[in-house]
Amino acid sequence: MTNKTTIYDIANRLNLTAATVSRALNNNPRISKATKKLVLETAREMNYEPNKLALALKKGRSNNVGVVVPYINHSFFSTIIRGIEEELHPKGYHVIISQSHEEEDREGQTIKSLLNAQVEGILISVSRSTKNTEHLNEVVQKGIPLVFFDRKKDINGVSSVIFDDYQGGYQATKHLIELGCSRIAHFSGDRSLEIYQDRYQGYVSALKDHGKEPVQDLVLEIRSTAEDGIQAIKSQMALKNPPDAIFSSTDYGALGAITWLKNNGFNIPSDIRVVGFSNEPFTEFMDPPISSMDQSPLEMGRKAAQMFLEQVGKKSAWKEKRIVLPPNLIVRKSSS
Amino acid sequence: MTNKTTIYDIANRLNLTAATVSRALNNNPRISKATKKLVLETAREMNYEPNKLALALKKGRSNNVGVVVPYINHSFFSTIIRGIEEELHPKGYHVIISQSHEEEDREGQTIKSLLNAQVEGILISVSRSTKNTEHLNEVVQKGIPLVFFDRKKDINGVSSVIFDDYQGGYQATKHLIELGCSRIAHFSGDRSLEIYQDRYQGYVSALKDHGKEPVQDLVLEIRSTAEDGIQAIKSQMALKNPPDAIFSSTDYGALGAITWLKNNGFNIPSDIRVVGFSNEPFTEFMDPPISSMDQSPLEMGRKAAQMFLEQVGKKSAWKEKRIVLPPNLIVRKSSS
Repeated sequence: MTNKTTIYDIANRLNLTAATVSRALNNNPRISKATKKLVLETAREMNYEPNKLALALKKGRSNNVGVVVPYINHSFFSTIIRGIEEELHPKGYHVIISQSHEEEDREGQTIKSLLNAQVEGILISVSRSTKNTEHLNEVVQKGIPLVFFDRKKDINGVSSVIFDDYQGGYQATKHLIELGCSRIAHFSGDRSLEIYQDRYQGYVSALKDHGKEPVQDLVLEIRSTAEDGIQAIKSQMALKNPPDAIFSSTDYGALGAITWLKNNGFNIPSDIRVVGFSNEPFTEFMDPPISSMDQSPLEMGRKAAQMFLEQVGKKSAWKEKRIVLPPNLIVRKSSS
Repeated sequence: MTNKTTIYDIANRLNLTAATVSRALNNNPRISKATKKLVLETAREMNYEPNKLALALKKGRSNNVGVVVPYINHSFFSTIIRGIEEELHPKGYHVIISQSHEEEDREGQTIKSLLNAQVEGILISVSRSTKNTEHLNEVVQKGIPLVFFDRKKDINGVSSVIFDDYQGGYQATKHLIELGCSRIAHFSGDRSLEIYQDRYQGYVSALKDHGKEPVQDLVLEIRSTAEDGIQAIKSQMALKNPPDAIFSSTDYGALGAITWLKNNGFNIPSDIRVVGFSNEPFTEFMDPPISSMDQSPLEMGRKAAQMFLEQVGKKSAWKEKRIVLPPNLIVRKSSS
């Protein structure tokens, strides 16, 4: 038999509407038990093979996949989510998103809520403050696929797709050195977070590889806001020996620095060169346009979703995978 | 008895751990029926009053509230979501977010998924393409609180908090007229959407009230992207009689226009004045900073969340409320 039985065939046989058959197969409370029994028996008799989606519904599965990010209002994260949806939507999955606000507690509650909502998988970029991984272990223990993107914890069997932050920091710094900069300041993020630590290490290595010693006065930890960038550049330019270049770990820090520098009569790039990180969309439209490190967020989202798709349904024995995406420096007028 | 019984008191009495008591009260499958019975009886005996959150869990409630927006990557929507979370998080609710991508079908699936996830309410900004409201009616019929923000449909009993788009369009245009502009172009969004229609109507009324006839050549419908803004300004400046001001219904359109104008040697504001709409954070940092219409997204989110809180729990007879937030023009260098 080449033609597959559909719900329409069952409906015809039983003189029911297709909607009623579908509801009966999906165990809808509006359908009587007797009708459900009849429909199920007939479906079996006719070798009805429901599609994957309907099957999932019958099994009480939600088709929901949870995505947890620190904040949705960073283009980097919202673009990753776009990549995830582009992979999962055609497969019948629906993405529900939660923000951890960089708080471990909220991340834990979020995971709990998503498990309550019967998600079939969780894709997460771990919050800055998360030390304890119990809430993440719980997901694994329940046999629900967990995938890390951008920021990960080391948990056995959990796959991840991250960005090569060390190389990103290295290349941004090397770019400035090759342009002749001799005092390169670094606006770092909170270095208890691996990504910022790695960018900082890349910066330090690039300096050393080019015969320069890192200067502690030129390294500042700031939050990812224009306001913090303004404070940081102010303190840097007040140094007896101010920097001739800034490598900022975030585009927002670079934005703040450039705003202050312009307002105070400095020319960019001739007085001071600036490189940001993440290639936020606004960087292209600034005056001057800001050089930045593209992190391929769309690809990161897609790869994370693919990892989920490989795991879902396999209750055991999937192989932990680690993908590291290479950096791509976008050179614009702020640095050259 | 002033001291309230806690799960620790019950645990002590029964020589169980607090975790076990909590699980038993929450009907966790890991706890045996006998233990559950014992714990429940003891809890009753000791006048245990669980807190609201635990009570909700016992009743099988999710504490999840669904928020549906067209896109998360517009600061306007992500700020509304921040406002919603600021109200709901302290009350023990967890916000899960979905994107409709401006597609009616996806909005319908989203609503279905959120209902599957047992959300206790849905706050939604309706997609641009949504004509049919069946999926929204279904939420109401299930007795689940539904609240509209920014973009609404007329459904009986559904409260809404929206922005006064007509006044926004009126005031932006009046501002440009008062600065002496005589040919004011309007980059409108898709006017099948009420908000863009209202902004356009405000623009038309302001012109007429000041003795000017709207000129059809100066009104263009564009998407909310910098690329569309660039195409639109190109075609406008190619007119025999080009405009001396642009009122764009979106900041992205204004951004594109300014980028093209600067690249083509025009001075802003002396050659042409530009006003955007939504007060996206980048507008403040552009060169020149862009005048824009602030829509109080944080307040919009808070009010929408308050409307939900007023309704939740009341299975019937809540009163439909409509809040309209007033516009607030932020004048920056791009216009004056």
